[in-house]
Amino acid sequence: MPDRYAYLGPEGTFTEAALLTLPGAAEAERMPYATVPAALDAVRSGFASRAVVALENSVEGSVPTTLDELATGEQLQIVTEIHLAVEFALLVRPGTALADIKTVASHPHAQPQCRRWLAAHVPDAEWRAATSNAEAAQHVADGLYDAALAGSFAAARYGLTALASKIHDVDGAVTRFVELSLPCAPPRRTGRDRTTVVAYIRDDHAGALLQILQEFFVRGINLTLIQSRPTGAGLGSYLFWIDFEGHVEDARVGEALMGLRRVCAEVRFVGSYPAADGVRPVARRGTADEDFAAASDWLSGIRGQS
Amino acid sequence: MPDRYAYLGPEGTFTEAALLTLPGAAEAERMPYATVPAALDAVRSGFASRAVVALENSVEGSVPTTLDELATGEQLQIVTEIHLAVEFALLVRPGTALADIKTVASHPHAQPQCRRWLAAHVPDAEWRAATSNAEAAQHVADGLYDAALAGSFAAARYGLTALASKIHDVDGAVTRFVELSLPCAPPRRTGRDRTTVVAYIRDDHAGALLQILQEFFVRGINLTLIQSRPTGAGLGSYLFWIDFEGHVEDARVGEALMGLRRVCAEVRFVGSYPAADGVRPVARRGTADEDFAAASDWLSGIRGQS
Amino acid sequence: MPDRYAYLGPEGTFTEAALLTLPGAAEAERMPYATVPAALDAVRSGFASRAVVALENSVEGSVPTTLDELATGEQLQIVTEIHLAVEFALLVRPGTALADIKTVASHPHAQPQCRRWLAAHVPDAEWRAATSNAEAAQHVADGLYDAALAGSFAAARYGLTALASKIHDVDGAVTRFVELSLPCAPPRRTGRDRTTVVAYIRDDHAGALLQILQEFFVRGINLTLIQSRPTGAGLGSYLFWIDFEGHVEDARVGEALMGLRRVCAEVRFVGSYPAADGVRPVARRGTADEDFAAASDWLSGIRGQS
Amino acid sequence: MPDRYAYLGPEGTFTEAALLTLPGAAEAERMPYATVPAALDAVRSGFASRAVVALENSVEGSVPTTLDELATGEQLQIVTEIHLAVEFALLVRPGTALADIKTVASHPHAQPQCRRWLAAHVPDAEWRAATSNAEAAQHVADGLYDAALAGSFAAARYGLTALASKIHDVDGAVTRFVELSLPCAPPRRTGRDRTTVVAYIRDDHAGALLQILQEFFVRGINLTLIQSRPTGAGLGSYLFWIDFEGHVEDARVGEALMGLRRVCAEVRFVGSYPAADGVRPVARRGTADEDFAAASDWLSGIRGQS
Repeated sequence: MPDRYAYLGPEGTFTEAALLTLPGAAEAERMPYATVPAALDAVRSGFASRAVVALENSVEGSVPTTLDELATGEQLQIVTEIHLAVEFALLVRPGTALADIKTVASHPHAQPQCRRWLAAHVPDAEWRAATSNAEAAQHVADGLYDAALAGSFAAARYGLTALASKIHDVDGAVTRFVELSLPCAPPRRTGRDRTTVVAYIRDDHAGALLQILQEFFVRGINLTLIQSRPTGAGLGSYLFWIDFEGHVEDARVGEALMGLRRVCAEVRFVGSYPAADGVRPVARRGTADEDFAAASDWLSGIRGQS
Repeated sequence: MPDRYAYLGPEGTFTEAALLTLPGAAEAERMPYATVPAALDAVRSGFASRAVVALENSVEGSVPTTLDELATGEQLQIVTEIHLAVEFALLVRPGTALADIKTVASHPHAQPQCRRWLAAHVPDAEWRAATSNAEAAQHVADGLYDAALAGSFAAARYGLTALASKIHDVDGAVTRFVELSLPCAPPRRTGRDRTTVVAYIRDDHAGALLQILQEFFVRGINLTLIQSRPTGAGLGSYLFWIDFEGHVEDARVGEALMGLRRVCAEVRFVGSYPAADGVRPVARRGTADEDFAAASDWLSGIRGQS
Repeated sequence: MPDRYAYLGPEGTFTEAALLTLPGAAEAERMPYATVPAALDAVRSGFASRAVVALENSVEGSVPTTLDELATGEQLQIVTEIHLAVEFALLVRPGTALADIKTVASHPHAQPQCRRWLAAHVPDAEWRAATSNAEAAQHVADGLYDAALAGSFAAARYGLTALASKIHDVDGAVTRFVELSLPCAPPRRTGRDRTTVVAYIRDDHAGALLQILQEFFVRGINLTLIQSRPTGAGLGSYLFWIDFEGHVEDARVGEALMGLRRVCAEVRFVGSYPAADGVRPVARRGTADEDFAAASDWLSGIRGQS
Repeated sequence: MPDRYAYLGPEGTFTEAALLTLPGAAEAERMPYATVPAALDAVRSGFASRAVVALENSVEGSVPTTLDELATGEQLQIVTEIHLAVEFALLVRPGTALADIKTVASHPHAQPQCRRWLAAHVPDAEWRAATSNAEAAQHVADGLYDAALAGSFAAARYGLTALASKIHDVDGAVTRFVELSLPCAPPRRTGRDRTTVVAYIRDDHAGALLQILQEFFVRGINLTLIQSRPTGAGLGSYLFWIDFEGHVEDARVGEALMGLRRVCAEVRFVGSYPAADGVRPVARRGTADEDFAAASDWLSGIRGQS
């Protein structure tokens, strides 16, 4: 069990709430960091055993900094996936009324998720950016702003009170967090796993993405996320972040990864881990490990006559 | 010529610099807005004729708010694409030295582009979020923070000075801006055009993206950007933002769009416009307008015997 | 109604039996020809209105001469498809017993269909080639051979008797015949139609067949037969005979044919006609005529704003 | 070296000429058989070591009996491929002039290859079927017919003379013969090999052929022949005979065959053997054995950390 966790702080963020769902995390040392890169560097340097950061949000999409750090920074590996329902409250200093609110602070990702509620209830309030919702709460406690968008669990920590809760516009919003470690043995496969890779295409040619997709399709593997991200080498030069069903120990996954490796300029393995939504994939006929083993035996029979 | 432009302000942003590259923009009224949605709403309401906002950056990737507003908000249309080289300066109040800098403010997109320079030259400075680089400059002018990351053209406007320039880590960074209008006739085709559409997949099924790509591939059309974005209906429910070579008046583009329309739940046409990088696409044999016309004549001949 | 039919004779063949299933054929003039090309030339020259020849057999496969004549000869068009169950009898001169049979004659296609029965019942008999089963029957009547494989309906015509019937090895064998005319208006669509085309690939390159198949696949069209045939320009130079579900008047078929025409060196339309097996195809969602019309209207709306 | 060869006789056929190109064949015992199945059964029973039969002709296409026997009969393996230029002569009894010729006999495959010459020089002669061109020559020698289409090498054997030679319509016609043995170790790979398999599709579903082609395409393998043949279970039920570049020992071929085995109901390996046309295939980047080995090492590295 890791004895020290790094996470995107400060205390009171959704990230800390996600971290606390991990077994043993409540008893472990938990170090908040100001930025995603800083939290990850704590693991890279060995100061912390693990880091927890947000990867993707069902409303706002993927978190570019996390994707880019894992795709192009010094290599880390996803070992756990955590889904956390996102529920926002409007935190204020005790005694503040809706009519008093001139400014509302939050992380830039939080504001659009509460846009309609804010327009309906505090239409004249101005929004202010904070580096995190918890920082926004701190600023409210300091008297800098009037209200903060944050999880209700952050209220107590900053001496605030929730003037309204569940103020997000869309129910069912979920944020996907990942627990990261130094490169290591992937967790055992459970049959309900997800794998993440980053694929760099070789040149900027037309059919590159189609070719990548066919490597998965021909082995009957479902993609659950595909995101292109700039490589930094100019507009139009991309890498692909790809999440898909299955574990690197699955025969079909192994063969698809080898195929990807052959057609791409570079492939980075970012991890195989239990899928938080726990749905067992329906593998297409002919793509189970037994099917691969049978086909391999058959081929050996043909070749082995040599 | 539009008489009033909306743009993501405040004055002194890269967006304003992009806007000023448009013919006639220097003489037109230019209205800064605090957010991308607000700038776009100025066009939707008819208050402004056009809006200019950032769409994509070669370092940081696509701008989620712009993509989401154009994909799911009230419909607008891209009429011009602008590429602008991104060069950052470190703006300070006159008299400030590097050693004095405790805080550096910027839009969240600017900080990662100068990460290495900051780590080397002001390693102990804390970064602070601003809603724009120009706002960061204003905060520096107001004495709230010590330095701002912004274009050097913003210095004069806020009474600041550039302590260092070209401090971005990666040379050649380019931001892609778009000029938006109410839905209208697309600009005439030039032979070097780009088209943008948003495709909603019908269900969350395995081969959906592959199917979409095949509609383009079979007509020999090159994609230049594909981004999945959450629809807000839960993790795993996506729409695709797709940029590709060609103009809606091209026969191959028309047929591909109709194909997309048939296989997708919904397709939104976001615009056909001259490509800022001006490369004439190399069309695959059999995909020119003449080829489509010849095939259509041939088919009519067969059917017309009826 | 055609007044004169050409068919692959002589009288008493399965082809004549197929011809007689056509409405009005019993009353029309029926001219037997010695070869498939000769029967087809009778239509080409205008001497006969229609010709009936075999195209494909469920045991022996396609009939090369018919395919080649329709693919590369002067153009004719399939207007009707006829399926006929194939049931062989062993025809002998009256008085002949199994033990008397030293030679069995038939068209080369008939022998393999009765191979097992012959091996079991007349193991020592030698097989002799005839240009048709009816010619074989004639040779038996002439005393040249001892027995003929033919339809039992041929017995009376040649003064023979069926020593055994239903002697074919595989039950359910069906031969597919086609009625041909000069190029003309295709029969009206019935919703249960088949279309035949011949596609010449442009060069002998790897992905040519894949490209052809994708033109059909992307429009949701099922192929029912695909045969490569040499073009005569050397081993490895092929054309493809393709049968598929749908009628040339179907929007999806029209678009696929135009696509084929663009990617292939040449495409010959061989006909759209009611499918003899009468199964209504299950069109993939988004491929019905209404879907094409809706997509076309949508595209016009986008373009028409110009 | 085989001591006894079976071949499709009688003596004097092109098949015997092809057989004689094999090293040592001239000194070995050569047994003519009346049918392709009989020649193959001689090997199956162990009576002969090898058999030589025709597989494909550049004018007439594949030889159905050979394909069907190798696809569905008791298993045999192709060990050598032989290409033989096809040149027809018109053989007659000494003293026969063109004007005397009322009947011309040949194997049904030979007649269409000389159609134009016959039409020009003996327009009134009737064609008669023989089970082989050599049998036709025998019949001419016996006085049954007036002329035979056959190789000029057959003249001497049957006491005939070549009244005209090179009478085939298309120059460059080639027949592809194969040497067959009992299942055995494939010949060593030469870098210029061909492999043959037979694939039974699982159900009669739309995308089956596309799926098969993708297994090859994704590994960069060129097909050189694909033929559908009925399985005998009804019109529309097919197997595919597939020839492609490469040797079963090639990594890309091995993986493609395993893929085929998984998606098909059954796959029969018919042989890997040096390609008679000796062209070294241009493998797509990433598909050489070294690429497969590198990808496999990379995967082991990822998995081996477990």
